[in-house]
Amino acid sequence: MAHPLFDKHRATLDGALKAIATRGYWSPYPEVASGKIYGETANADARAAFEASLNKPFELEQLGTISRVGKETSPYGFALGITYPKPAIGALIAAAKAAMPGWRKAGIEARVGVCLEILARLNRKSFDIAYAAMHTTGQGFMMAFQAAGPHAQDRGLEAIAYAYAEMSRVPTSARWEKQAGKGDPIRLDKTYTLVPRGIGLVIGVSTFPTWNGYPAIFADLVTGNPVIVKPHPAAILPLAITVRVARETLKEAGFDPNLILLAADEASAPITQELAKRPEIALIDYTGGPGFADWLEKNASHATLFAEKAGVNTVVIESTNDGKGMLQNLAFSLSLYSGQMCTTPKTIFIPEDGIETEAGHQSFDDLARGLAVSIDKLLGDPARAAEILGCIQNPAVLDRVDGAAREGQVVRQSASLQHPQFAAARVQTPLLVRVDAKREAVYGTETFGPVTYLVPVDSGADGVNRAMALARSKGAITAALYSTDKDLIAQAIDAAAEAGVALSCNLTGGIYVNQSAAFSDYHATGCNPAANASLTDAAFVAPRFHVAQARVPVAG
Amino acid sequence: MAHPLFDKHRATLDGALKAIATRGYWSPYPEVASGKIYGETANADARAAFEASLNKPFELEQLGTISRVGKETSPYGFALGITYPKPAIGALIAAAKAAMPGWRKAGIEARVGVCLEILARLNRKSFDIAYAAMHTTGQGFMMAFQAAGPHAQDRGLEAIAYAYAEMSRVPTSARWEKQAGKGDPIRLDKTYTLVPRGIGLVIGVSTFPTWNGYPAIFADLVTGNPVIVKPHPAAILPLAITVRVARETLKEAGFDPNLILLAADEASAPITQELAKRPEIALIDYTGGPGFADWLEKNASHATLFAEKAGVNTVVIESTNDGKGMLQNLAFSLSLYSGQMCTTPKTIFIPEDGIETEAGHQSFDDLARGLAVSIDKLLGDPARAAEILGCIQNPAVLDRVDGAAREGQVVRQSASLQHPQFAAARVQTPLLVRVDAKREAVYGTETFGPVTYLVPVDSGADGVNRAMALARSKGAITAALYSTDKDLIAQAIDAAAEAGVALSCNLTGGIYVNQSAAFSDYHATGCNPAANASLTDAAFVAPRFHVAQARVPVAG
Repeated sequence: MAHPLFDKHRATLDGALKAIATRGYWSPYPEVASGKIYGETANADARAAFEASLNKPFELEQLGTISRVGKETSPYGFALGITYPKPAIGALIAAAKAAMPGWRKAGIEARVGVCLEILARLNRKSFDIAYAAMHTTGQGFMMAFQAAGPHAQDRGLEAIAYAYAEMSRVPTSARWEKQAGKGDPIRLDKTYTLVPRGIGLVIGVSTFPTWNGYPAIFADLVTGNPVIVKPHPAAILPLAITVRVARETLKEAGFDPNLILLAADEASAPITQELAKRPEIALIDYTGGPGFADWLEKNASHATLFAEKAGVNTVVIESTNDGKGMLQNLAFSLSLYSGQMCTTPKTIFIPEDGIETEAGHQSFDDLARGLAVSIDKLLGDPARAAEILGCIQNPAVLDRVDGAAREGQVVRQSASLQHPQFAAARVQTPLLVRVDAKREAVYGTETFGPVTYLVPVDSGADGVNRAMALARSKGAITAALYSTDKDLIAQAIDAAAEAGVALSCNLTGGIYVNQSAAFSDYHATGCNPAANASLTDAAFVAPRFHVAQARVPVAG
Repeated sequence: MAHPLFDKHRATLDGALKAIATRGYWSPYPEVASGKIYGETANADARAAFEASLNKPFELEQLGTISRVGKETSPYGFALGITYPKPAIGALIAAAKAAMPGWRKAGIEARVGVCLEILARLNRKSFDIAYAAMHTTGQGFMMAFQAAGPHAQDRGLEAIAYAYAEMSRVPTSARWEKQAGKGDPIRLDKTYTLVPRGIGLVIGVSTFPTWNGYPAIFADLVTGNPVIVKPHPAAILPLAITVRVARETLKEAGFDPNLILLAADEASAPITQELAKRPEIALIDYTGGPGFADWLEKNASHATLFAEKAGVNTVVIESTNDGKGMLQNLAFSLSLYSGQMCTTPKTIFIPEDGIETEAGHQSFDDLARGLAVSIDKLLGDPARAAEILGCIQNPAVLDRVDGAAREGQVVRQSASLQHPQFAAARVQTPLLVRVDAKREAVYGTETFGPVTYLVPVDSGADGVNRAMALARSKGAITAALYSTDKDLIAQAIDAAAEAGVALSCNLTGGIYVNQSAAFSDYHATGCNPAANASLTDAAFVAPRFHVAQARVPVAG
């Protein structure tokens, strides 16, 4: 008999398994932040709970606590004042290790059932996680709800489905029978046991703590590995809530809650290096800057590293038959969360002689101005602008915007906006700067935040070549092309595969290049410097467990 | 239409796919070195060809050759005198890189078809490879034939089947349709392209160059990665023949032969470090000592490493109802190829008060003597002894045998034997040494070669605990238990899973703990220090490719 939680969530698992095989649209967790779905008081309750949680210790029973840490400030302009357990690292490691054998022996279905139950409970807490994400990442509320809530849950489920599929393919036993010579055949009974790799360390990012964290957390857990969650010091709360829900669920299901542990710290006293160097850490998932990824690669080489770093996402505009739709689409992509997404376009290549559109020829300057105007219109209403832009997560980004404006000819000035509700919120509109094609040192390096370079090139094909060369050398998670030329599109699709970058062509409607849908879109490929892993392919889950076998002769 | 070579080998692939899912006995490559199967003159032809190849340049057309290298000597007592192209490493890398795009675009079925054709041709060359393996590894002829021929081919096919299964699960396209609001749904057409990781480097071992090399070579190739094969300087010939066959096959099939390249060197001027550090190397497969594995982990951390290192394989004898069968089985396991297998037991734990057998109680000393006598009997006939023992691959092993004899009480003396055909062959019989349980520094470190420590312990359970603790701390690829106690067997199976080691129980017939059968036995788990990878599980193939996607709105 399967584990009761496996039975309870069987339909969700089956849906996910079907979705990863066909990769059409699918999602079990509603992305609409509606009271009809999540409960009429869910929003108000969550907001009140968030406010009540400020300036207090976060309630999390965890062993090995030596004091309290936490210095989060909301990009909307106030300190959270929440403190978290500061752990003795040795105690965390020991507790995680002790939790492993029972979890391994529970078997695939129990682990899948418990993980799906955790996700179901996280889904019900989507509004709570939305406020936590909003006031740590600086995203607008609706984006925080979707990205940190249902979309992150989708990504977690996707990882569970991949892991379940891989684990289920290993038979639990086999009868091996070999005829050797003329006598009776040799017969062995073999059993195969899945073995987790060891302790997983998940290093969170400040911008999408749950969306980037859940695939790793659930891939580790479901394959039998305990997880130590080390949030970014600026975005602890969303992952702390997650860990609390997971620990409660594990405990209720009769498992050791120490299968998931929170390791919070402050920027002034980081603990990630100490954690990563521990030999018991077998798996590390990291999202963040390439500098620390390199450090991990060199200094924690005993562990398998799944890293999403950074790159230079590009757009090539060669021609279009929907100029307005294109500019609206791009305006939204560049504005959303002020360009603080690992999928936001950073550099747009445009033929210096201009492009053909449905309304005739358009010069480089006209097109550049058109994009600026589209952004102005999109952000014309302050409330809507605040919702789309969110806030600047890290104040250092603002200096980079100032610096970028001096690199070329400013096409659209970046400006601070007053947030309608939060007086001290860091709201900043996108900067567009024209930069020469020969200045790759400028536009070929990621400038994180609301900065986009417009680069004149010889032709659309030249733009595609430059975009793909950048993806290969500097990395890229997304690339986009606007063209009515089928041959160029085909060439770009091929070149993008060669460069290991996801390509979106001619997006003009309600789908944006920065969006990546679980179950259908692979997020990053692992095949260029932007990342060494993909959400989610088999390579993301398969290295998290292995198989130990036993063989015994069949009794004559 | 599928590629013609895919169609040609479809039944072999289907057989392999079924075998890896059920893991019963299966092999498409006959292990019997019979003229009826391989051709009546195959043996004689291969021996003549081997002799004719001595003291000549090995014929291999390969670009970037700057001079010739090669200092192989047969453990049977003569220099091979064969030289190989000494490559300019930059030229190899450039050629491998240039070969990638065409191979990627050929698609799964073409790559699988070509790889299966290479294996089929290697199978026909099994006698040639047998002589090459015999006179580099020092194995007896029959073992060289099986291990370097059909069994290695089985392992290569197994890797191809795993890779094919993983690659085929990625759909080539999907229609994505999402209802957003009340209008028409958003529709995107998505295409998914498999992307290889980069250049693979396969670092060969001196004892099983093809058996350990083929899984990596074929896993890399079939997933679209070119391969640079860097043989151990003492065992180049088997892999050089392999590379030549593969290059010929690729060329005939219309592909760039530079998808596989030989990088031979000599021990006095090794090139492996230079190769491994090249940033173009994305995948490294290594079999050999843990020291160099550590170097690779730290210094080639840009690449994904699949490493099989070393460990301390153990046997626990608690009780038996077939004492004679047990001792005969162990005698063969300890003698085969003079203990130079990564699966040979190195340490045997026996209760100091002795064990129960079908013939009553037997003391530690009686059992130890019984094992020595079984080895004497097994090796009583010089011709048979020479065939089983083979030769000592590396003369340094002989010093270690001398050293080991001084570590405790010698139960069976190791002796040099005169080979009936090869006067200068290094033939050496197994040494058995009794060592105290507290001297883990001695028996808990791998002594490669014909050395086994017999260690008195408190009980069978104590032995199992010690064996599994060693597996966890020092690594182990195999473990064995002899016991009539079902509870102890169950405990050992569980403890072995926890320690990530393959356990064989009560082997008394024609199957030995050192044997690992493709399609059924997982060779190493990747879950203890002996290896970070397994032959073959999904984790061995999945990280060798990723997926790049493109999405385009469906034309209204």
